[in-house]
Amino acid sequence: MIDEAVRQIETFRCRLGDPGVLTGAADKEPYERSARHAGGSAVAVLRPGSEAELAWTVKTLSELQLPLVVQGAATGLVGAATPTPDGRQWVLSTQRVRDVLEVDPVNRCVRVSAGFRLSDVNRVAAAHGLVLPIDLGADPTIGGMIATNTGGARLIRYGGIRENLMDVRAVLMHPAGECVGSAKGLRKDNTGLSWAQLLCGTFGALGVISRATLKLHPVQQQSATALIALSDVHAAIGLMCELEREFGEMVSAFEGISGAALEAVALHQRNVPVPFATMPAYAILVEVSSAIPPGQGLDLEAMLMNWLEKRMVAGELADAIVDKPAQLWRIRHSISESVQACGRLVAFDLAVSRSRFAEFREAAVHVVQDMIPSARICDFGHLGDGGIHLNLVVPSDLDTATIEVLRDTVYDLAVFQFEGSYSAEHGVGPYNASYYERFTSPLTRELAHSLKMFLDPRRALGNAQL
Amino acid sequence: MIDEAVRQIETFRCRLGDPGVLTGAADKEPYERSARHAGGSAVAVLRPGSEAELAWTVKTLSELQLPLVVQGAATGLVGAATPTPDGRQWVLSTQRVRDVLEVDPVNRCVRVSAGFRLSDVNRVAAAHGLVLPIDLGADPTIGGMIATNTGGARLIRYGGIRENLMDVRAVLMHPAGECVGSAKGLRKDNTGLSWAQLLCGTFGALGVISRATLKLHPVQQQSATALIALSDVHAAIGLMCELEREFGEMVSAFEGISGAALEAVALHQRNVPVPFATMPAYAILVEVSSAIPPGQGLDLEAMLMNWLEKRMVAGELADAIVDKPAQLWRIRHSISESVQACGRLVAFDLAVSRSRFAEFREAAVHVVQDMIPSARICDFGHLGDGGIHLNLVVPSDLDTATIEVLRDTVYDLAVFQFEGSYSAEHGVGPYNASYYERFTSPLTRELAHSLKMFLDPRRALGNAQL
Repeated sequence: MIDEAVRQIETFRCRLGDPGVLTGAADKEPYERSARHAGGSAVAVLRPGSEAELAWTVKTLSELQLPLVVQGAATGLVGAATPTPDGRQWVLSTQRVRDVLEVDPVNRCVRVSAGFRLSDVNRVAAAHGLVLPIDLGADPTIGGMIATNTGGARLIRYGGIRENLMDVRAVLMHPAGECVGSAKGLRKDNTGLSWAQLLCGTFGALGVISRATLKLHPVQQQSATALIALSDVHAAIGLMCELEREFGEMVSAFEGISGAALEAVALHQRNVPVPFATMPAYAILVEVSSAIPPGQGLDLEAMLMNWLEKRMVAGELADAIVDKPAQLWRIRHSISESVQACGRLVAFDLAVSRSRFAEFREAAVHVVQDMIPSARICDFGHLGDGGIHLNLVVPSDLDTATIEVLRDTVYDLAVFQFEGSYSAEHGVGPYNASYYERFTSPLTRELAHSLKMFLDPRRALGNAQL
Repeated sequence: MIDEAVRQIETFRCRLGDPGVLTGAADKEPYERSARHAGGSAVAVLRPGSEAELAWTVKTLSELQLPLVVQGAATGLVGAATPTPDGRQWVLSTQRVRDVLEVDPVNRCVRVSAGFRLSDVNRVAAAHGLVLPIDLGADPTIGGMIATNTGGARLIRYGGIRENLMDVRAVLMHPAGECVGSAKGLRKDNTGLSWAQLLCGTFGALGVISRATLKLHPVQQQSATALIALSDVHAAIGLMCELEREFGEMVSAFEGISGAALEAVALHQRNVPVPFATMPAYAILVEVSSAIPPGQGLDLEAMLMNWLEKRMVAGELADAIVDKPAQLWRIRHSISESVQACGRLVAFDLAVSRSRFAEFREAAVHVVQDMIPSARICDFGHLGDGGIHLNLVVPSDLDTATIEVLRDTVYDLAVFQFEGSYSAEHGVGPYNASYYERFTSPLTRELAHSLKMFLDPRRALGNAQL
């Protein structure tokens, strides 16, 4: 390590103490990994222990003109929080920024520092009968969730982060170390530009999120869950419309699962039984739920059973399993890992309008089968939001060039032909930055650039697009 | 009228035709009014009849360097859509921008041009069993609703415009006439800066909204409504928490009404009976509702009656009336007009955290009574969102200077002492622009200014703050 870096590390250690600066290879390693892609290498990991220390750290990094990458729990899937392999970046971890985690039951909100995790919030909220109803496989930090505008499986009912965000505070690179935004916890505040909305879904490119206020919701007191076997995805779309018409605001999840994805679970998760005798072409996981407890007239399980029976009689369903919600959700939450275990993965995080979902899926399947006949198409996702994780298992010796062409073709299909999104919920980072360039209009990129020049003119927040 | 203006009018008439250019005093008059304040005067009113005509009109106005004010239905309460009194501005009305009004029941959304009104959308949506659940006294255009991020009485359940906005298209002043944004109707799209979120709640300062896609919700199939008399506002806060805990997602309105506001209705609306024998100190209007029709076990009216009875027995309520929803909502919707009829109005549109609402209201009442002992404090508002329309009836001969001091004092109390908002849902326009200056941090104003310089460097969109 060169002398200059040693001096810089000493500067940080003076203020942040030993737990605030990690330099040993073993200590740094967990911060150099990536959840899905290759890891990187960091000069050191800085872990400020409060918002004030975070502001000081950002200011010092800026004064020393050091390149950095901000990291929460590093659960993101586009590499935005992973240091580059060249070893030049400093990881700025927000994991110890834990000044405040305070549930306000009257305002039905939580005031929370960026470093707390989703599970931390929900543990504290549960004591008040409240929940932050973002349902994910991972357990990210609140700061990371805001930066990537996390969605998840219950967005159909509650919205994602953006819809539940009351305010955000962040530390800027320019003016270096300055804290902006607010922590007022207002449901209504129509007074101009919203820092919360600017910082949500811009991947940390405009500032380092330090804390936020989020709406909470009453915990569900009853729910009914069914796994439904269907002959094809068109049938799923019809059921979705019927279910929403009949259960209205009670619909809290409508997930689509391909037969191949179910097979992957059956194959690789011995402890997660898939309850169908024959594997269906397509399946949906449906959840209806309410904060009204049983015993007051509303019986969602009986209503869902009744609804399914009618559909069975009408021949609309191949099969339907109503089981303990936890059992059925385990299947859904095991898919990603199971598909990955099948072989070499090529993953997509796409969304289209729900009214074009079935047509898009067919077209995408055709495209993949044409290009790579041996590919296994294990798609699944948040059908109720038009989301589809088109995850493919491809031959392990498939050349990179073919995969690149496949990616371009599928993305073009989704964005140009079906007016969809090339990143429904994972955001933009190094691993899909070229698609940001391809699919973002020049004017939008220029506007983003002008914001970036205003708030981070040296582009020190390096990994984030904009 | 000077020759130059005559030539310019001819240019517009050539493209937009006679219905597209209004110059006669009587024709212009409806576009020169303001819903609450003094009107203004326009060179002419331009009414393009499509998005393409809108783009051409914006481009031409920009090329001719003419100052303009964009107007939807002119129902706003801060003067942002009213021309200035100097007669120099052109009104650009979006009322005839009505290219598309299309409900997509599968995607559960509406694609709609800026010039359609809320009532137009809901008429078409109702045919599909769907609704855009923004509840307002006025009937604004969709473009105006997005620009001001309209909230209303059912935000507690559905959110406001921001939470229901899928995308927006807008015409820019710079590059003049360029159309930005999208009309994809995606529920998930995490690919960087969102034009929809930038244009929502920035009062038209960044561009002219031409169309949008909004989420729709299933129409409610049952609801129960109660008007509840209370001894004070503290009791209301307690009830709000209990109601949300027991009725969860079914709570669709929780409105607060002062005794003085109820008295104003009783006095000025002969056709709207206020059902209390003695006027309470404070009242709340509660609505619970569901898309699940009666007859399936859920009976919200019985549940609400039962809930109220228990509270009556416990002595928590002074009185409670369960009546036809329409009857009770008429009381709520008559308040604004009734208070205005009582005399000279000084109105505030404030919000604070719900957990500080009661304390804030007490403090505000003290401040007003201290300064103007004869003022009648007829406050009401969306208590469930922390919103309070602190509307005061003051002596008709009260001097302007005193009113200005009163305004400053109340706003300072709300914003500085109670971390609230000086404009909860009405937005910012000429009538509260000085408070934007006072309460917005210099850095936020600078950032807004840099966006403004990028998108409207000549500041042609004149009335809008930023």
